[in-house]
Amino acid sequence: MPQLADQALVENALKQPLADFKVGVDNVIFSVDTARNRLLVLLVKRRDEPFLNYWSLPGTLVRKGESLENAAYRILEEKIRVHNLYLEQLYTFGGPGRDPRESEQSYGVRYLSVSYFALVRFADADIVNSQSGHVAWHFLEKLPNLAFDHQQILQYGYQRLRNKLEYSPIAFDVLPELFTLNNLYQFYTTILGENFSDYSNFRSRLLKLGFLFDTQEKVSRGAGRPASLYRFDSEAFAPLKDKPLVFI
Amino acid sequence: MPQLADQALVENALKQPLADFKVGVDNVIFSVDTARNRLLVLLVKRRDEPFLNYWSLPGTLVRKGESLENAAYRILEEKIRVHNLYLEQLYTFGGPGRDPRESEQSYGVRYLSVSYFALVRFADADIVNSQSGHVAWHFLEKLPNLAFDHQQILQYGYQRLRNKLEYSPIAFDVLPELFTLNNLYQFYTTILGENFSDYSNFRSRLLKLGFLFDTQEKVSRGAGRPASLYRFDSEAFAPLKDKPLVFI
Repeated sequence: MPQLADQALVENALKQPLADFKVGVDNVIFSVDTARNRLLVLLVKRRDEPFLNYWSLPGTLVRKGESLENAAYRILEEKIRVHNLYLEQLYTFGGPGRDPRESEQSYGVRYLSVSYFALVRFADADIVNSQSGHVAWHFLEKLPNLAFDHQQILQYGYQRLRNKLEYSPIAFDVLPELFTLNNLYQFYTTILGENFSDYSNFRSRLLKLGFLFDTQEKVSRGAGRPASLYRFDSEAFAPLKDKPLVFI
Repeated sequence: MPQLADQALVENALKQPLADFKVGVDNVIFSVDTARNRLLVLLVKRRDEPFLNYWSLPGTLVRKGESLENAAYRILEEKIRVHNLYLEQLYTFGGPGRDPRESEQSYGVRYLSVSYFALVRFADADIVNSQSGHVAWHFLEKLPNLAFDHQQILQYGYQRLRNKLEYSPIAFDVLPELFTLNNLYQFYTTILGENFSDYSNFRSRLLKLGFLFDTQEKVSRGAGRPASLYRFDSEAFAPLKDKPLVFI
């Protein structure tokens, strides 16, 4: 709605009492299976109504005295163990009608969702009680129908992930410490799609930025000649940290 | 909190019932007085407790059946008339203790704030009932004490404004249609501070991006030689629109 409120909407709203809300947090947790070049998202199978047995983003409702962030970390801790998890707030979805429990025949209050986002290293993320099958990584390209408006929240998170890849060194937080330029390119391609850049432009652009350190170690890859192993040089990156910068 | 939840916090939270919330929207509306090179923010003097007579961001509580966005546009319409206003969601502040009405001696429910952001053209923005003095532009550099955590929300909005200036063509939405490169530089300097870039680097970088169109018109400025008037060429910009790009 790119303009001021419609007068009829305003008058109608002002006749209504204040809405009562419960507030939920929902986490969009991405990972990249670098061995198989697949983008993954963490989903949980619901054990309660509404949307019983649907897959959903791992979330919970905020309790008395609890901050939004603490609720988001609390529910994740039940599902996954991951080193140095850092959640970032994504977006708040709070329109009327987004949760069937809002109806007068149910609880009759609105349900608002504050979503959080993280990209985690696949090798470091252990699903808790994975044998139950209620918590699992899913391929982003092949998702089941999700509960509530979680498909929309997930799309919003995917857009954030793409932006962060373009404007921040997030890739180096989750790649192995040593990687070839081809590994890095595959990582970007897995998230951004095949057409984001050709390899030679990508390679020359990243090297020119000056924070990829050539370790002089080599790794052989099939029939081709051995590829150099690089690492992210955080000291070389430090002066660029607060500058606007494009990574691809 | 860059890690998983503390176990004691988790156990404590789970003993508590779900929190009840009212949900507010608060708008961070920036403008630049280009004649005086001052960055402005729209504030409203509160007429109710808590924080009676404090300046605050223009906000309201969400009513039954109303979307968050509609509530944000609704309250702004009472305060300001502006052409093509486009609000973008900023951040959600929802920690316990952010509103004194949360106490058991008051309403005993949490108050969450979903904040929205806009940069508006100063010449197009008319304050409604400005003679009452309850709605006014304030210099960002010289703010009164604000109600609630509105100082924190405003800081968050200011950071978003800086980011948007660096990564998007937002300046051209609010500058006059024709401007000199010096006007553009002053606009950036007003928001980002004197040291963001020197004029000649800024000038050559912006011209190289290829979407500033030299109209061949000149404007004289004091004793110096006449300066060229430029306009933003949205056709030339179109192919860059979805590409990651840095503007300064």
